[in-house]
Amino acid sequence: MSELRRDPLDQRWIIVAPERARRPRGALGIAAAPIEPVDPCPFCPGHESLTPPEILALREAGGHSNGPGWRVRVFANQFPALTVEGAHDQHAEGPYDAMRGVGAHEVIVETPVHDHDLSDLDGPALRDVLLCYRDRLVDLYHDTRLKYVLLFRNRGAAAGATLDHSHSQLIATPVNPIRISRKLEAFREHFRRKERCLFCDLLQHERHDGSRIIREEGGFVTFAPYASRFPYEIMIAPKEHRWSYGELSRHEADGLARALKDALLRIRLGLGDPPYNFVLHAEPNLHAVPRRGGFWDTLRHDFHWQLILYPRLTPVAGFEWGSGFYINATPPEEAARHLRGVDVSDEAVAAWRAARKA
Amino acid sequence: MSELRRDPLDQRWIIVAPERARRPRGALGIAAAPIEPVDPCPFCPGHESLTPPEILALREAGGHSNGPGWRVRVFANQFPALTVEGAHDQHAEGPYDAMRGVGAHEVIVETPVHDHDLSDLDGPALRDVLLCYRDRLVDLYHDTRLKYVLLFRNRGAAAGATLDHSHSQLIATPVNPIRISRKLEAFREHFRRKERCLFCDLLQHERHDGSRIIREEGGFVTFAPYASRFPYEIMIAPKEHRWSYGELSRHEADGLARALKDALLRIRLGLGDPPYNFVLHAEPNLHAVPRRGGFWDTLRHDFHWQLILYPRLTPVAGFEWGSGFYINATPPEEAARHLRGVDVSDEAVAAWRAARKA
Repeated sequence: MSELRRDPLDQRWIIVAPERARRPRGALGIAAAPIEPVDPCPFCPGHESLTPPEILALREAGGHSNGPGWRVRVFANQFPALTVEGAHDQHAEGPYDAMRGVGAHEVIVETPVHDHDLSDLDGPALRDVLLCYRDRLVDLYHDTRLKYVLLFRNRGAAAGATLDHSHSQLIATPVNPIRISRKLEAFREHFRRKERCLFCDLLQHERHDGSRIIREEGGFVTFAPYASRFPYEIMIAPKEHRWSYGELSRHEADGLARALKDALLRIRLGLGDPPYNFVLHAEPNLHAVPRRGGFWDTLRHDFHWQLILYPRLTPVAGFEWGSGFYINATPPEEAARHLRGVDVSDEAVAAWRAARKA
Repeated sequence: MSELRRDPLDQRWIIVAPERARRPRGALGIAAAPIEPVDPCPFCPGHESLTPPEILALREAGGHSNGPGWRVRVFANQFPALTVEGAHDQHAEGPYDAMRGVGAHEVIVETPVHDHDLSDLDGPALRDVLLCYRDRLVDLYHDTRLKYVLLFRNRGAAAGATLDHSHSQLIATPVNPIRISRKLEAFREHFRRKERCLFCDLLQHERHDGSRIIREEGGFVTFAPYASRFPYEIMIAPKEHRWSYGELSRHEADGLARALKDALLRIRLGLGDPPYNFVLHAEPNLHAVPRRGGFWDTLRHDFHWQLILYPRLTPVAGFEWGSGFYINATPPEEAARHLRGVDVSDEAVAAWRAARKA
């Protein structure tokens, strides 16, 4: 018997239907098509002239901008969805609403090593990437035309990546994305009624219940959300109330690096190294909202940031596109049990890497 | 310069970013992976015992239920997302909301010929399929536990199909899917303010403007929606106000068959036979809402059904999953221009089929 579950963060119902996993080819339906190599790789050291000029880079003292020697490098996406010039220019087009594509679209190359995944980085290197996310968010939020910055990562062709070299992206938008607006509304409504953070309440329940917890690590909780849209969806969030990714400390970034690496390794070793996406649901831009009223006053109390990982295991089909309803054949409790059991010790990872090379 | 556009039917913003089409591999990123054949095909004539018993079938006089001789055949999905037994049983699970997976999940096999696509059917055969959709909708709407029936079609592995043999599906849900609720709200709000159907107003604008119109055929308008989420997204809707797919006449079904076949051929010949989904946004179940108040009184005036086609040309990536914002690299005006220009005359189709066989 399947079950409908409502996501308390965006009020969307999803269907948990374990029966669907018995279909021909079952739950794991996506072919992991390789990305066609682009030669030369524009993200490799020495090819900096093939990208737009860098916005931010971490490099040893003495290195030159837009030359090699960097550990992390950020620049504008060469094929941007949104660009920074001009005003919003909201206007009508007949019966429709339109505005100019004001925003930002940046690429964060996380490592100079072409064939490294994020989970191949060591703790300090991964921490630096996470601090770069923070620094770009803080910098972009000085621009009050930008309402939101979404940080995301596409790994593998089926997850939408067109380049193989390890990278994340961010898109800054002039309106709050609909998933963020719905989440902000849910958070605010809960706080209005209870004067507590909705997410803190949910985390307390999850940690008490335990069935969906995958790991607690470095001040972060990793778990399978109750109303996961996708099989093996994973959420990582600070155990304590934290409303702002922009205020992430170096120490917290160390903990998040450990938690993220742990989760990525569980996906790679436990699910056969599938394509995946992750997204950071950070706070919206407080500089872009009126100082009085609205969420400016309460966001510090009602919002709680999260990082969400989506392994791309099944194609999304007509029912989902047409309804906004998602069918998930893997109950989150089963996903959590499986991922909890994956051995991600150094020895297991080394053995997995050796087997993969052979 | 890209542009943000708001979908008036669900208030979602999308980004039209033609620049993105210049990426390596450009706009057409999905590999058309073949579906692994299942042998024997459970949807072929003579294999009726491999499926659940039929709910509805069109066959010549003298044929036997669950035997061959049918032209269209409907049965329960063997791996159902939802099933018809029992009551909703809405309940709390800790801080969460849940209900039992009450509903229906059916398969409509559209033709006995294994390797036919819907666009290979002749007019009367396609009309019969569309009337089967109607008859299943009307029948399921006698069950007041069911709030909505979504008819949809997945063609090709990348569109979520696991079987090759031409078929559609329907899922009946015990709550209105979120995309339908949002559409109903937009329709009702417009009617409240203007006492007119929102969709009729939009169609009038589209037909006057012309830039997004692909075809007018048999009482139906085929066009590229202003705020298309996906490249080459197509909408087909009755030219005159029609609130109920359940009231579709045989004559109207003839017209819809012509319009749908035309659109499917434009996609196949004009876009290289890509995987695709389509969904029918029919009316919700009026028997399942209170007689007084709510939308029971106004739905006949404010709702207008549509069929939406989504060619699967590009993978959906982290930004979309995380934000609910969609980036579309093909402006709908350009999509309409391209699809208008596709030659779908009998001669052109015959030549395309011959070239394909060779």
